[in-house]
Amino acid sequence: MTLLSPDLVVEPASPPARDDAPAPSFGERRLWLQPRHGDGPRAVRVRYALHGPDGAPVVIAQGGISADRRVCAGEDGAHGWWSALAGPGAAIDTTRVRVLAIDWLDRADLGAARAVGSEDQADALAALLIALGLGRAHAFVGASYGAMVGLAFAARHPQRLGRLVAIAGAHRAHPLAVAVRALQREIVRFGARHGDAAGGLDLARRLAMTTYRGEREFALRFGAEPEFRDGRYRFAAEGWLEAAGARFAARFDAERILALSESIDLHAVDPAAVRVPATLIAFSTDRVVPLGDLCELQRRLGAPAVLHVLDSPYGHDAFLKDAAQLAPLLREAIAIEGACHD
Amino acid sequence: MTLLSPDLVVEPASPPARDDAPAPSFGERRLWLQPRHGDGPRAVRVRYALHGPDGAPVVIAQGGISADRRVCAGEDGAHGWWSALAGPGAAIDTTRVRVLAIDWLDRADLGAARAVGSEDQADALAALLIALGLGRAHAFVGASYGAMVGLAFAARHPQRLGRLVAIAGAHRAHPLAVAVRALQREIVRFGARHGDAAGGLDLARRLAMTTYRGEREFALRFGAEPEFRDGRYRFAAEGWLEAAGARFAARFDAERILALSESIDLHAVDPAAVRVPATLIAFSTDRVVPLGDLCELQRRLGAPAVLHVLDSPYGHDAFLKDAAQLAPLLREAIAIEGACHD
Repeated sequence: MTLLSPDLVVEPASPPARDDAPAPSFGERRLWLQPRHGDGPRAVRVRYALHGPDGAPVVIAQGGISADRRVCAGEDGAHGWWSALAGPGAAIDTTRVRVLAIDWLDRADLGAARAVGSEDQADALAALLIALGLGRAHAFVGASYGAMVGLAFAARHPQRLGRLVAIAGAHRAHPLAVAVRALQREIVRFGARHGDAAGGLDLARRLAMTTYRGEREFALRFGAEPEFRDGRYRFAAEGWLEAAGARFAARFDAERILALSESIDLHAVDPAAVRVPATLIAFSTDRVVPLGDLCELQRRLGAPAVLHVLDSPYGHDAFLKDAAQLAPLLREAIAIEGACHD
Repeated sequence: MTLLSPDLVVEPASPPARDDAPAPSFGERRLWLQPRHGDGPRAVRVRYALHGPDGAPVVIAQGGISADRRVCAGEDGAHGWWSALAGPGAAIDTTRVRVLAIDWLDRADLGAARAVGSEDQADALAALLIALGLGRAHAFVGASYGAMVGLAFAARHPQRLGRLVAIAGAHRAHPLAVAVRALQREIVRFGARHGDAAGGLDLARRLAMTTYRGEREFALRFGAEPEFRDGRYRFAAEGWLEAAGARFAARFDAERILALSESIDLHAVDPAAVRVPATLIAFSTDRVVPLGDLCELQRRLGAPAVLHVLDSPYGHDAFLKDAAQLAPLLREAIAIEGACHD
């Protein structure tokens, strides 16, 4: 148990929610953590968002390494990365539950740490529950890296969690996915060595995109004839990948992505140590987290676990793109018996 | 029909094989071709190897884009990329058949052509059969890009072929594999723009290696704990990928690989136009050429085709690494009824 007592509030929280509608609340806390790959305890700033009515059951929601605390769309029209599944009336219904999320900690946040552990994110969330006086989470819904952090949370802080919902994430990264991510990081460093870290990050993101989506989706979208331009043929998917790479490189810092990508590959939780009931969701077409890994996780988990396998054309990104199939499963998994906050 | 009449011999062929043992014979011919992406006919040098006894049935054998005409090991101990399956007493038995292979043509060979077509390689092989007085091939055994060229050969020169054996290659590249190869080429160009084409080629090859091998193989080989070194964690597969990338970058020219990689992605043969009996071989774990594409090819082929699906841990590279499973299928597919050259 490396979680230390949470420290004082550094900034005031956002104004309290209006009585008639849940309003998102953004804040920051300085919390004492003992980083998994660090040399001792240190104070760490944790930025969080809390959407939903006071007193409602808390649902932690965390996504992939490029997701942030803005899970739900803001009332101001601000983007929420999971607004299709979390918000008023959605599967994670912010009129009935409070959604808590953090911005992932990176290596800079952890000071002298050699790396960022999924354990560090889990400990930060546990410390935050205490610091905000929320006590215990009704559920932790994590997708991709968020599922890994959810597993770490369940293993380290079982007394703070009612149910784990792990989507497209397992007890460890698959060695093939590790190799592909290590190569992405090598491409970023290659760009940086040549004075073009953004160019490297762009290419690394394009590579990531080819692993996030499914074979079927590529076949459906990108079967068009290539065009000869500037001395070479350009193939149908190239423009899409270029746009995705450029958007990502403009938005993210290379060092942060290097640290979070490595954190996925370092993730390791003993399934037997997870003694919280769990709902596991796998996508049949996921090329990053193979179905076999979620089957193994279910078999070895230290608590009852149900595994749903969704047949989606979207591969790993189905957690973002296949809200229609996910919604009923999430509703069921986080259902609050007898609870009603209308 | 774009094949023109073959031209004269430019260099004398190697010395004839000894009577008591088949000896490899290396040569070069200047042949008239009409490049698929060029502006008209031109003379093209084609480098070939011919292993096996005079007068025996000819088996064309072609591999991936990094393979060359040295299919069988030389008597001098020289490397042959398919020596596990082709050579004296092997599945493609050079005491009974003559193995013909060429070095792939690249863009430089084709002069002003915009790109290299799989059709160009097929036409070069057909012209070579005529130039060498070999007439007709008993079989064309092609793997990966070689299978694509075999399909182009069967569609364009059916009168010159008895049977096609296509391993891990189909009538077109899968759009996801196209996207990943287009990205490999972008990585090479990125390196070149920064004055480091070899570094780009190295990284592109590492990426290719993550697609050539199977998920199971990675899980079996690369599950070891990462090591912290030089400010980051190094994962089990990284050293293997680095070595593969460095070897490749030292051996290959970036322009040649760019052209051949693009040639894979441009490949398109109408299966109905293939009117030669075929044996298709797919690997269940192939992540470059999905099983579904070979199923579609079989269904649409214009001649009887049998499809064998091998369950191999090696993914696409099973054509190189799973000789044990391939050997009996190849023996059967190229069996010469009544023929015996002992």
